[in-house]
Amino acid sequence: MATAPIISDEQASPEIRAVFDDIRAVRGTDFVNNFWRVLAADPHTLKRTWEEVKAVMIAPGALDPLTREMLYIAVSVTNGCGYCAHSHTAAARAKGMTAEQYGELLAIAGLAAKTNQLADALQVPIDPEFLA
Amino acid sequence: MATAPIISDEQASPEIRAVFDDIRAVRGTDFVNNFWRVLAADPHTLKRTWEEVKAVMIAPGALDPLTREMLYIAVSVTNGCGYCAHSHTAAARAKGMTAEQYGELLAIAGLAAKTNQLADALQVPIDPEFLA
Amino acid sequence: MATAPIISDEQASPEIRAVFDDIRAVRGTDFVNNFWRVLAADPHTLKRTWEEVKAVMIAPGALDPLTREMLYIAVSVTNGCGYCAHSHTAAARAKGMTAEQYGELLAIAGLAAKTNQLADALQVPIDPEFLA
Amino acid sequence: MATAPIISDEQASPEIRAVFDDIRAVRGTDFVNNFWRVLAADPHTLKRTWEEVKAVMIAPGALDPLTREMLYIAVSVTNGCGYCAHSHTAAARAKGMTAEQYGELLAIAGLAAKTNQLADALQVPIDPEFLA
Amino acid sequence: MATAPIISDEQASPEIRAVFDDIRAVRGTDFVNNFWRVLAADPHTLKRTWEEVKAVMIAPGALDPLTREMLYIAVSVTNGCGYCAHSHTAAARAKGMTAEQYGELLAIAGLAAKTNQLADALQVPIDPEFLA
Amino acid sequence: MATAPIISDEQASPEIRAVFDDIRAVRGTDFVNNFWRVLAADPHTLKRTWEEVKAVMIAPGALDPLTREMLYIAVSVTNGCGYCAHSHTAAARAKGMTAEQYGELLAIAGLAAKTNQLADALQVPIDPEFLA
Repeated sequence: MATAPIISDEQASPEIRAVFDDIRAVRGTDFVNNFWRVLAADPHTLKRTWEEVKAVMIAPGALDPLTREMLYIAVSVTNGCGYCAHSHTAAARAKGMTAEQYGELLAIAGLAAKTNQLADALQVPIDPEFLA
Repeated sequence: MATAPIISDEQASPEIRAVFDDIRAVRGTDFVNNFWRVLAADPHTLKRTWEEVKAVMIAPGALDPLTREMLYIAVSVTNGCGYCAHSHTAAARAKGMTAEQYGELLAIAGLAAKTNQLADALQVPIDPEFLA
Repeated sequence: MATAPIISDEQASPEIRAVFDDIRAVRGTDFVNNFWRVLAADPHTLKRTWEEVKAVMIAPGALDPLTREMLYIAVSVTNGCGYCAHSHTAAARAKGMTAEQYGELLAIAGLAAKTNQLADALQVPIDPEFLA
Repeated sequence: MATAPIISDEQASPEIRAVFDDIRAVRGTDFVNNFWRVLAADPHTLKRTWEEVKAVMIAPGALDPLTREMLYIAVSVTNGCGYCAHSHTAAARAKGMTAEQYGELLAIAGLAAKTNQLADALQVPIDPEFLA
Repeated sequence: MATAPIISDEQASPEIRAVFDDIRAVRGTDFVNNFWRVLAADPHTLKRTWEEVKAVMIAPGALDPLTREMLYIAVSVTNGCGYCAHSHTAAARAKGMTAEQYGELLAIAGLAAKTNQLADALQVPIDPEFLA
Repeated sequence: MATAPIISDEQASPEIRAVFDDIRAVRGTDFVNNFWRVLAADPHTLKRTWEEVKAVMIAPGALDPLTREMLYIAVSVTNGCGYCAHSHTAAARAKGMTAEQYGELLAIAGLAAKTNQLADALQVPIDPEFLA
């Protein structure tokens, strides 16, 4: 159903297998989700993207892991990416997102989509106060 | 430059003026930014949208004000709304967003846009594990 | 400022000039707006697009001219196209759109953007009742 | 398959059930579609969104119900929201949209998407004539 | 499952059938894919769109057929159109796209989505050097 | 005008300056465009993004430099990113894109946007023939 094959562990080249194994080790789970198995169609992009996920989503930083995951959801649903909405909502729940927090995320995402639409429709000029 | 006039306090009808005054009172500032002044083209939408902003962004809840504002930015930049990027980045800074937090927000938004694009290009099938 | 030159009448080749003249004749105005002058970078696309505009927006049909123009605005603002928001809002006003109609268009566009966002976030399954 | 449960009447809290019942009463049907049943994940957003639908789509105004529904379709398909395309096309048909009207809506939506794309690609400067 | 019927050869009016037959003749195959069969809901748009596909994608020009198809994929995946990603990736493969070329297309599309997002988030001012 | 400062060479930290210098060396020009100067707000994203640009757009591969740049334009204009449309159209011209090639790119991008819109509106089911 994808536009490229879903690569199993058995079909993976050593280069691809090394990324799958690192995903398992870093996440502490045996599960490697379809995104990585299909992205293996381009081993360079597979490796580069996983390295970026580790640096941006997993390495310690100024934002806690749940906030990062909720920001990821916000972008993903705005892009209308069904796979991404599913996988990152699941990830946020695994990181402790409560029903109340999810409800507020939905409310903010819906409100922002509406006011973005209104600002684009009205072509509102940027206030000088916002230009630093 | 907008597709509707920027309504000054003097031009505002009592109904519109009441919303402007409530914005000032709730935010504790005399500044009413252009979004509201142009949205006044439709007083009903003006009032309804401001009530929604108060309920979603200002009322106490499970997410702190800065996290809400960063989620707003994430949606706005994904929609490519220039006015919204400016106004909500300014709002997030006013609520204490540090340069480091903003940098991480940028990194997450960029990474999510990339992986959304890849998942859409590859039409990755949703893993049964993500279906609750 | 555009990514291709704005072609004046004097710079237009006979093929391009013929389209400009037809725009004037059909619209009953001497004004040829920048969209057509920049699109002249590709004379084939210029001609094909103008023919399509005549067939879709001007030829008699089941929808009246103002409804068509409001649908055009709805698509344009959802795509966040600033030029298009400006030009088609002006066109709708020239075709008689009232302030009240514009206000309702804004309200619908904003509400639809919000519920689209929510449906995408929640990945709502399509009801069998909607599948004809 | 959604990212939140589909709430049946039996599972609904009194607050949620009141919204479901009002949907039934206002629409004059026993059918409550999945959008509302999944949106019940956040009862506040459920209630607020339904109130907004009543005010924007159902209350008397300057635009007739079918025009409103067609504008809703235009936004929804531009956002690529599959659920929304299905539900609002069904709603427009229930309000009398003919095959010819739907054909013209498709033609306008397709043409607008194309010219939006061309205007964005060419970065066409806004004509002074469009700035009121 | 579509919002309009999938028209079989038997159900097609002579006007629609003529387009289906031309698709077969030009492509040298008996297969007419669902896009055309559903688009037949509006015979005018069906005919106009097929004529445009012939002029833009099939007539000789400055870009070779595979490059055109890859550009089509790039637009389609950015719009998140699942049907289009599937059909045009299949078409590109039929025109000789190799796994390595597809991998590079994915990498470029992902990178562009990321830098588009960052430029929109940062509202980067256009360098005078880019304005011709 | 940006949401973060435009960092000059003098203001750049050694880490940022090293990226600027590498951009100059690799591109063989003294010009560092605003995208990189504003992205310097997050030095990690700056460095990672430039490394990705080198790997994806500059390193030898299966697609020639002009084709890559045209694919970049296709994604950028579909996202409606004004800065990106300007910078990558300029880059494509510097790599030899002719007026005729640009015209065909516009025609393809416009056609794809239209058919994406139609496929999304009609919710066309994917043909089994496209599922590998």
